[in-house]
Amino acid sequence: MCKRALQYPQVETPPPQPFLISLKNTLNEILFADDPFRKIRNESKTSKKIELGLRHMFPILEWARGYNLEYLKSDVISGITIASLAIPQGISYAQLANLPPILGLYSSFVPPMVYAIMGSSRDLAVGTVAVASLLTAAMLGKEVNAVENPKLYLHLAFTATFFAGLMQTCLGLLRLGFLVEILSHAAIIGFMAGAATVVCLQQLKGLLGLSHFTHSTDVISVLRSIFSQSHMWRWESGLLGCCFLFFLLTTKYISKKRPKLFWISAMAPLVSVIFGSLFVYFLHAQFHGIQIIGELKKGINPPSITHLAFTSPYVTLALKTGIITGVLALAEGIAVGRSFAMYKNYNIDGNKEMIAFGMMNILGSFSSCYLTTGPFSRSAVNYNAGCKTAVSNVVMAVAVAVTLLFLTPLFFYTPLVVLSSIIIAAMLGLVDYEAAMHLWRLDKFDFFVCLSAFFGVVFGTIEIGLILSVGISVLRLLLFVGRPKICVMGNIQNTEIYRNIEQYPQATAVSGLIILHIDGPIYFANSSYLRDRIGRWIDEEEEKLRKSEENSLQYIILDLSAVGNIDTSGISMLEEVNKILGRRDLKLVIANPGAEVMKKLSKSKFIESIGKDWMHLTVAEAVSACDYMLHTAKPDSQEKISGVPEFNNV
Amino acid sequence: MCKRALQYPQVETPPPQPFLISLKNTLNEILFADDPFRKIRNESKTSKKIELGLRHMFPILEWARGYNLEYLKSDVISGITIASLAIPQGISYAQLANLPPILGLYSSFVPPMVYAIMGSSRDLAVGTVAVASLLTAAMLGKEVNAVENPKLYLHLAFTATFFAGLMQTCLGLLRLGFLVEILSHAAIIGFMAGAATVVCLQQLKGLLGLSHFTHSTDVISVLRSIFSQSHMWRWESGLLGCCFLFFLLTTKYISKKRPKLFWISAMAPLVSVIFGSLFVYFLHAQFHGIQIIGELKKGINPPSITHLAFTSPYVTLALKTGIITGVLALAEGIAVGRSFAMYKNYNIDGNKEMIAFGMMNILGSFSSCYLTTGPFSRSAVNYNAGCKTAVSNVVMAVAVAVTLLFLTPLFFYTPLVVLSSIIIAAMLGLVDYEAAMHLWRLDKFDFFVCLSAFFGVVFGTIEIGLILSVGISVLRLLLFVGRPKICVMGNIQNTEIYRNIEQYPQATAVSGLIILHIDGPIYFANSSYLRDRIGRWIDEEEEKLRKSEENSLQYIILDLSAVGNIDTSGISMLEEVNKILGRRDLKLVIANPGAEVMKKLSKSKFIESIGKDWMHLTVAEAVSACDYMLHTAKPDSQEKISGVPEFNNV
Repeated sequence: MCKRALQYPQVETPPPQPFLISLKNTLNEILFADDPFRKIRNESKTSKKIELGLRHMFPILEWARGYNLEYLKSDVISGITIASLAIPQGISYAQLANLPPILGLYSSFVPPMVYAIMGSSRDLAVGTVAVASLLTAAMLGKEVNAVENPKLYLHLAFTATFFAGLMQTCLGLLRLGFLVEILSHAAIIGFMAGAATVVCLQQLKGLLGLSHFTHSTDVISVLRSIFSQSHMWRWESGLLGCCFLFFLLTTKYISKKRPKLFWISAMAPLVSVIFGSLFVYFLHAQFHGIQIIGELKKGINPPSITHLAFTSPYVTLALKTGIITGVLALAEGIAVGRSFAMYKNYNIDGNKEMIAFGMMNILGSFSSCYLTTGPFSRSAVNYNAGCKTAVSNVVMAVAVAVTLLFLTPLFFYTPLVVLSSIIIAAMLGLVDYEAAMHLWRLDKFDFFVCLSAFFGVVFGTIEIGLILSVGISVLRLLLFVGRPKICVMGNIQNTEIYRNIEQYPQATAVSGLIILHIDGPIYFANSSYLRDRIGRWIDEEEEKLRKSEENSLQYIILDLSAVGNIDTSGISMLEEVNKILGRRDLKLVIANPGAEVMKKLSKSKFIESIGKDWMHLTVAEAVSACDYMLHTAKPDSQEKISGVPEFNNV
Repeated sequence: MCKRALQYPQVETPPPQPFLISLKNTLNEILFADDPFRKIRNESKTSKKIELGLRHMFPILEWARGYNLEYLKSDVISGITIASLAIPQGISYAQLANLPPILGLYSSFVPPMVYAIMGSSRDLAVGTVAVASLLTAAMLGKEVNAVENPKLYLHLAFTATFFAGLMQTCLGLLRLGFLVEILSHAAIIGFMAGAATVVCLQQLKGLLGLSHFTHSTDVISVLRSIFSQSHMWRWESGLLGCCFLFFLLTTKYISKKRPKLFWISAMAPLVSVIFGSLFVYFLHAQFHGIQIIGELKKGINPPSITHLAFTSPYVTLALKTGIITGVLALAEGIAVGRSFAMYKNYNIDGNKEMIAFGMMNILGSFSSCYLTTGPFSRSAVNYNAGCKTAVSNVVMAVAVAVTLLFLTPLFFYTPLVVLSSIIIAAMLGLVDYEAAMHLWRLDKFDFFVCLSAFFGVVFGTIEIGLILSVGISVLRLLLFVGRPKICVMGNIQNTEIYRNIEQYPQATAVSGLIILHIDGPIYFANSSYLRDRIGRWIDEEEEKLRKSEENSLQYIILDLSAVGNIDTSGISMLEEVNKILGRRDLKLVIANPGAEVMKKLSKSKFIESIGKDWMHLTVAEAVSACDYMLHTAKPDSQEKISGVPEFNNV
């Protein structure tokens, strides 16, 4: 029937695979995409296998052998640098979480040690983060008042940390790390900016020396709370805060302009704390409206395993808090680990990192720590300070332990307003308006996701912002599948190439036929749409041709190159389209179906119903086959029309 | 730099569009894909526009003008045929919904009239359906007992019908009909089979003459309820039921074998009712364990608009029931309308149909009807009886009205067991195991969706089945986006064509480079996966080359033909891959990016960072450009390697 087509290679169906093998391959692809056990599997000896397995579990075994004095020197310097940042930041963030300030120091001791053993990043510095701290306060605080019931609140915080760690470990062990990817980059930018705004507003409490404050996090409640107490504002506190804020922002600016001076901004918080404390000590400012930290208990982390409140009526609250803060902490930690790994050209296994984070939080919850992860600011300082391995985390932990054992009395006079300034200075860096502008330029939808996360956090709650941005992001994926693009293709002159005529205006349509390119999978969610849309393209084309009195339409070529998959609804749709076209005296021609599509088409009767000769490897071949038919049939147009139904009845 | 590339046409970026226009186009594509107002828009005169608009709203204005005596004859015959099916079925299904039997007749009077005016299908016959009836009973019965509190139950059923109609109208008016597509074909097959199983089991109550019965619908509760009452079974009832069931199934078999004898199975239910009633009347079987319908009120539909229970505490229950049954009814009605429209080659606008269904149910809820749609069985009989237009629905409504006015006393002696037999016979046709086998052969995942719907309904509740199947179907869509296939392409000998080497085993790899084809969009949900997977392909390829001591890898060609869209996370991923490759002395080359992808790449700095010369229109060109570089650089391999970073720094 169609001689030309025989000169070309045929469309092939991939060799059939037994169901179980293809299921196994699919699951492997979903869960073990990066094939982490490749090395272990390739090894034949069992002892070697165990050794490789242990090294896989505990990366310290991998790098400890090559460790040398040179590395140690770098790690000690960077470790001490990050400790000087960790101590004031830890105290500040613990305050943000409505937890005793000492918890911030505890959390910089045990978790970094665990990470040093199990983590695979060389640059990540472990610690608490502002957003998760605020989220803990907001979520727990809704049901348990931290001031009235500090013990229960503290125990719930440990329990939430335990659940967060458990969830992180489980995600890692079950290889479900990809679930964290549901937080798109755009959502994180908006979410972080929103959270930073909210955190900064919360700091106005400390900055203005207020003692009562709203538990809500949204802008409106916070502003109302602040302005309704304007008679309570303390100018001394505000002035001191602004001075330190100015100092901190100046050092940040200097370090940003000259990356070599990174240590200026890294040391600034500690310097602020020292100056602030001296200031209060010598001027007795605590009696003039400057609130101070007060006594911090000496000694390293007390055990807290018996404080986990599994039997409390609030255990579901702790679970919910743990899961949400845990996912956020994972997203930040993994993103940070990955970015620095890319700079230094080594690999981070997301699922392994999750296990490390999870273990760090589980063991942390046993030893009076709250949620930790790999904060960006601290890791960036670590990287700039030239750390070589996770030993810098150990050095930081030791420095914090020394502080806990001997130096806590020094923080007695530290003014709270300095801590607020430290938090505000850190948070302002998270409002990344340039990234948001970049999103707007590149991808309006991503910008919309970012905005909705931001406004959700700022005007609603942190959870609303999170749910909104994730919901909209997922909607976008569904919309991609639900409304795939269909475009008309034309021939690019002097070539055998066919391309979208919207993208290549020089591409010209071929007379007598229309080439449609479907840009997405054919699934139940889009099959009615595709059927309607193909129908409309043909209607419009026929109308155009009728007006211009050109050759009438004879062939519809469907280019399936970009159709990744098809389901049974999709196959029914193609069969339906074929029947509808048959009734309109049009012939359906298929070009370049992919492996998955061919597998399914060949199992259905579709190929027989359109005829194997009408499946072509490329659009060019499909066009030339149609052309051949058009021209050989042209002399007697009556025969041509009566000839069409014949193909349909094959 | 790359002379060869200049001989070919370049990759083009589609002309930029102002944001608002592209937003409008996108929304149009989502909501008005079939461009329903094309005709109205093209018309210039306002009066003509109004006329077309009215015709669009009320299809009766379209077809009434061409109506003739020939059509009327056909419509009267088919109308009477479906009425003879509608009367017994209506009574049976109302019983299934725990509603007074007369409601089944009411529901075959008003709604068909409304549909005749607003509906666009010529073949659809309106009536109640078994699954929605059972679902109404199951959902309302959970909180309100139909026996103890029949009045409240009845009013809630009207309210649920009103909400169903309201929701259907709103979906249609807001052009959100595509939301119904979330019920995939596979889910519907499994769901229907499960519901049919459950309905049949429920009928054992009538068949065995039991008076107490469980309210649960799952198999285990029903079987327990039946076998715990084995001493109450009435053999007379069972025997009579089996006889009628045998008769009904035999007539079905005959009609299936010879479609021309469709009227045999269409008339069988009415014949069964007549014979059953005569049997009871003459043998006084009502005193021997055969339950009968009893008195039916004479007269057509009484108004029920004042019975809508908007102020009842159960209003949310009615809302929930209305939404779920309404969506199911829509899915069935639209699928039925579409299938018959396809046979007769005319078009059905889903959104317009929704408005018609919605109005039919709203007006129905005002006139003592419960949920109606276009049931498949009745519509098939209508089609086979040769109906021409929706007038057959009017004829059926008139026949039912005549029955309501004069013939209801005739149903006094109708045994309930006959109604049970009618339901069972109808339901067995819904267990479409052949379709399920077809799913298994074609698409295992669809089969899994179907099975989960079936088992969810049979062992859980109808809602669980529904949620499970929809959840799994949506998961599949997300999985498609989350784990796009990446395959290696090879050259098909003697051509310039490059294809997936798994599908085309004769395709051969090109030495010195690897061509990767990404089969899906690049979004936040898959960008880490793609980065890992690309890295793994390259690792594996390099390992293979190292073993065989062939040319080392120099170029990575990414074929983006099938990448429908990209977001900012995707662009970051490509930038990252480019940097990683650069560090490994490999060069990234892009082939055939589509319109959407090109738009975004050209706005980002990606094109500059890989160099515009390394973007090619086809894979063949990319390969020949790489080949040219490989061969011109070959004489001095030192130079070639040092040359690579140069491209990266562009």
